[in-house]
Amino acid sequence: MPEPRRPRIYLDWNATTPLRPEARAAMAAAWDVIGNPSSVHTEGRAARALVEGARAAVARSLGAEPRGVIFTSGGTEANVLALAPGLRGPAAPPVARLLVSAVEHASVLAGGRFRPEDITRVAVTPDGVVDLDDLRRRLADGPPALVSVLHANNETGAIQPITEIAELVRAAGGLLHVDAIQALGRIACRLPELGADLVSVSAHKVGGPKGVGALVLRDGLVPAEPLIRGGGQEQNRRGGTENVPGIAAFGAAVDAAMAGREHEAGRQGRLRGAMEAGLMEHPGTVVFSSHVQRLPNTTLVSAPGLRAETTVIAFDLEGIAVSSGSACSSGKVAPSHVLAAMQVPADLAQGAIRLSMGWDTTESGIARLLEAWRKITGVLGRGVIRTAPGTVLKKG
Amino acid sequence: MPEPRRPRIYLDWNATTPLRPEARAAMAAAWDVIGNPSSVHTEGRAARALVEGARAAVARSLGAEPRGVIFTSGGTEANVLALAPGLRGPAAPPVARLLVSAVEHASVLAGGRFRPEDITRVAVTPDGVVDLDDLRRRLADGPPALVSVLHANNETGAIQPITEIAELVRAAGGLLHVDAIQALGRIACRLPELGADLVSVSAHKVGGPKGVGALVLRDGLVPAEPLIRGGGQEQNRRGGTENVPGIAAFGAAVDAAMAGREHEAGRQGRLRGAMEAGLMEHPGTVVFSSHVQRLPNTTLVSAPGLRAETTVIAFDLEGIAVSSGSACSSGKVAPSHVLAAMQVPADLAQGAIRLSMGWDTTESGIARLLEAWRKITGVLGRGVIRTAPGTVLKKG
Repeated sequence: MPEPRRPRIYLDWNATTPLRPEARAAMAAAWDVIGNPSSVHTEGRAARALVEGARAAVARSLGAEPRGVIFTSGGTEANVLALAPGLRGPAAPPVARLLVSAVEHASVLAGGRFRPEDITRVAVTPDGVVDLDDLRRRLADGPPALVSVLHANNETGAIQPITEIAELVRAAGGLLHVDAIQALGRIACRLPELGADLVSVSAHKVGGPKGVGALVLRDGLVPAEPLIRGGGQEQNRRGGTENVPGIAAFGAAVDAAMAGREHEAGRQGRLRGAMEAGLMEHPGTVVFSSHVQRLPNTTLVSAPGLRAETTVIAFDLEGIAVSSGSACSSGKVAPSHVLAAMQVPADLAQGAIRLSMGWDTTESGIARLLEAWRKITGVLGRGVIRTAPGTVLKKG
Repeated sequence: MPEPRRPRIYLDWNATTPLRPEARAAMAAAWDVIGNPSSVHTEGRAARALVEGARAAVARSLGAEPRGVIFTSGGTEANVLALAPGLRGPAAPPVARLLVSAVEHASVLAGGRFRPEDITRVAVTPDGVVDLDDLRRRLADGPPALVSVLHANNETGAIQPITEIAELVRAAGGLLHVDAIQALGRIACRLPELGADLVSVSAHKVGGPKGVGALVLRDGLVPAEPLIRGGGQEQNRRGGTENVPGIAAFGAAVDAAMAGREHEAGRQGRLRGAMEAGLMEHPGTVVFSSHVQRLPNTTLVSAPGLRAETTVIAFDLEGIAVSSGSACSSGKVAPSHVLAAMQVPADLAQGAIRLSMGWDTTESGIARLLEAWRKITGVLGRGVIRTAPGTVLKKG
């Protein structure tokens, strides 16, 4: 008789999260609201009310004003919309150049609507944290800049010192964009406390649907030209009929995420501690950014001899979904630009596996992961082969 | 005892359609597919399969190749993505300027990424059809152009002579973009027969969800730079995690729309004939573009003395959702640019009401509409007041 099939374990929450029950309910309810939010009739006004309710929820989660929320098709569009010459503070000239950290998401590294010659990369430390001295130097070396920094890195989970960065940027007369896509719902992430001028967020990282995000501006900020021009939607800042069911579900998801945030952070942090202790039992295992503050749910790990592509497949065959770096670049075989910026040697970088947890991650799931880790590192990691209990043969 | 409340009648299908049952089912099924389509594990591949299935459905509906389909956040983004210098045919230099008809959607009139000085408007006839002589002259008057024309107008329903336009454009070495957002699922609309190089479509006009659309390229066309750069999604043509549930629902909706298209076109066309006969009983009533081919579901009507904003509210109070022009500009009080381009006098244009039908429109709904029309034109239309059967008093 075959063994009963074991449930799959999903440990790729930084790529995308499952849809929360609250988001499903909100989306299904929105299906029956048939109007276009721009229409003035009863059906249109009902759709408008859903959008505005979600706008208030997103604003609340970030300590922002609802009027500062521009709904987009996701985090990538929010990032691209944010990064534009022409953006300016209440009483300041438009920013003329862009500084990005070397570990940003691809959509930020591409620089939005800035010309390539107006984009400068800021170095990071070997732990993947923005090098504040380098930032200070680069801010001083030119006109006021827009600075774009990930709140928490999608690959390593490393949390950037946003308030310190904000002080440097403000002192230099610049503006700060924070990509909080991985941070929202996982760590505290409020515009006023961060000192951020703009923040990008995404629904499908907090249990909402894929295809919705927002760029959130602090009061008084004057945005650049819209990226998508059309009708007058989103106060003329983003054209196109609003994704009403997606936006409604985003609102419901972010409310649920905020309500459970501190509890889940503690719970996942403890699970991760146990998991990392188990991972480290394999000789030569390295957890990246482990000396700095990280998201409670994220571990980027490597071990000698592993190759990420093969390892991801091996985990998948064991019934466990993990990732090699970010999903957005999983198709590529190129090594992670994040680890390259952290000066991680190529042979270690090529084995990096991201394990990211969420609300359905349990102790038994972590036990399954560790069981698979022992098996896979035993076979794929050239370091060791276990021949019998207690006997360890060194290889290669 | 109060009268039982009558069901509302929705006659604003050109603003947005209800979600088809097939689309709801597809979306709900997608909720349980938790992966990111860019992830290589089982969950990711399942999400990828949903996206690719929908891509095939959208391609099929337009007679295009699946590889030509770029999913976007809607029709507006598809239009803006389409209109970019750098676009070129298989063996041609990039187009250097943009010609748009004067009755295009706001997202096309804005010209996408062309500079304002490189955008020229082409005149239309009083019936709202592209003036082919003017187009021919403007094509001859400069380097090869991208021409963007609505397949069917969102306000009047007027159908453009796309194949004739395509021949003129091709002869002049240009490229043709067709905004088929209102046409898809309502009239035949295939790239090869139209002779179009690019076509924009939107899910929420065919019974799919808001927040999803596609730009569809014919084989061999080389697109311009992406509008939203980020990860390598959509073959590096549009960054950002795909809206998996929305895209899956789009696929299901377009399949259902195509299956029912001819039957519904006939049915709605007959209903509209009866409706327009009823509308015309009010003296001075004008149906715009009535001398040319129109979408079977669309009537743009006005009568002396009506003001659209008031009339829409009056219909809403009667339980009927209708629109003044396009939903995208419903908030604005400015008169329709479409009617202005058709040289409709301002006093008639200011009363224009759009009645647009769909699959749930019935004879009894049209009877309700006509009942309300008689009441509203009697009160708001200054032309006539009915005092008793057979007696008509002229007013004002």
